[in-house]
Amino acid sequence: MYEGPVQDLIDELGRLPGIGPKSAQRIAFHMLTMDPTDLTRLQVALQRVKDEVKFCELCGNVAADVLCRICADLRRDPSVICVVEEPKDVAAVERTREFRGKYHVLGGAISPIDGVGPEQLRIAPLLKRLADDVVTEIIIATDPNMEGEATATYLIRLLRSFPGLAVTRLASGLPVGGDLEYADEITLGRAFSGRTNVG
Amino acid sequence: MYEGPVQDLIDELGRLPGIGPKSAQRIAFHMLTMDPTDLTRLQVALQRVKDEVKFCELCGNVAADVLCRICADLRRDPSVICVVEEPKDVAAVERTREFRGKYHVLGGAISPIDGVGPEQLRIAPLLKRLADDVVTEIIIATDPNMEGEATATYLIRLLRSFPGLAVTRLASGLPVGGDLEYADEITLGRAFSGRTNVG
Repeated sequence: MYEGPVQDLIDELGRLPGIGPKSAQRIAFHMLTMDPTDLTRLQVALQRVKDEVKFCELCGNVAADVLCRICADLRRDPSVICVVEEPKDVAAVERTREFRGKYHVLGGAISPIDGVGPEQLRIAPLLKRLADDVVTEIIIATDPNMEGEATATYLIRLLRSFPGLAVTRLASGLPVGGDLEYADEITLGRAFSGRTNVG
Repeated sequence: MYEGPVQDLIDELGRLPGIGPKSAQRIAFHMLTMDPTDLTRLQVALQRVKDEVKFCELCGNVAADVLCRICADLRRDPSVICVVEEPKDVAAVERTREFRGKYHVLGGAISPIDGVGPEQLRIAPLLKRLADDVVTEIIIATDPNMEGEATATYLIRLLRSFPGLAVTRLASGLPVGGDLEYADEITLGRAFSGRTNVG
């Protein structure tokens, strides 16, 4: 359809998440007419992420050093670990400003269809972090979908026998700002079974 | 919010058209965990577009050579030139498979608010292409918005005195697959004034 290099760029951009063929084309043509210094900045950013971003040896989050900023932060409570699937989930929890503990990034969720079992996840490093009895609570914050539920169930079964360790999960219920009428049945059902006493 | 290089990449991605902060974040985190060879392919595609893509000396379309594929194609009718704003518009017209003539890319549209006047557009090269009397029709296919209309009006005034040259515009009207009820008043008004005799 287009001159070779333009089509190649459209194809590569189209492989990124959330970018369809139309957006890929739009971005590629934008890049053609972009200020070359702006394009260079993007290229440098890409290369730096490739070269400099490592994963925290302790928790698996993205890191610029051996430890990520959160693991290196002595003001964070080391007795609570929030277990998430991906580094982007750390960012999502951080935005709430509700959590002052540490994280553990599994690097995915159990998904037999994709060939991901517990042994592909960073579960052994999590168990290692529990060895010194500092941790008193594990908050399981996997995604509320089938893979996330499977992973949560696996972790609960694995961890519940640990003495002195509370294993908790994020509350399921109605999203704030939503409409009761538009909530799916499972969410509404969970909101009922998880109702709290307020009177 | 994130480790430096990741945030830089999110910022750069967020400057691309149609990519908001959420998508930029999603793409950046995807790039972190992407197969390095896939990321390299994207980088190579970017660099090749930067190095190899030129603009056709005749029509201003993207080109891998001095002339673009369409200008170099002897089977295309040289007597009709379709004038568009950007290379992506050439691609859009090509997808219709309705047009077998040549193109002329203006490189934008008249927009006083952005400091773009007729002298910033590739209008002089268009006039030069009319010198040898081969061209008998100019189809003005600028965008149906204010800037495109201004550009079309300018070109019509400029070209209408040329002897033996027909100046035409794309039809305005209802988009196919649309709903009469949802058409805006201007589109519906144009569809009325441009109605065709079918009986």
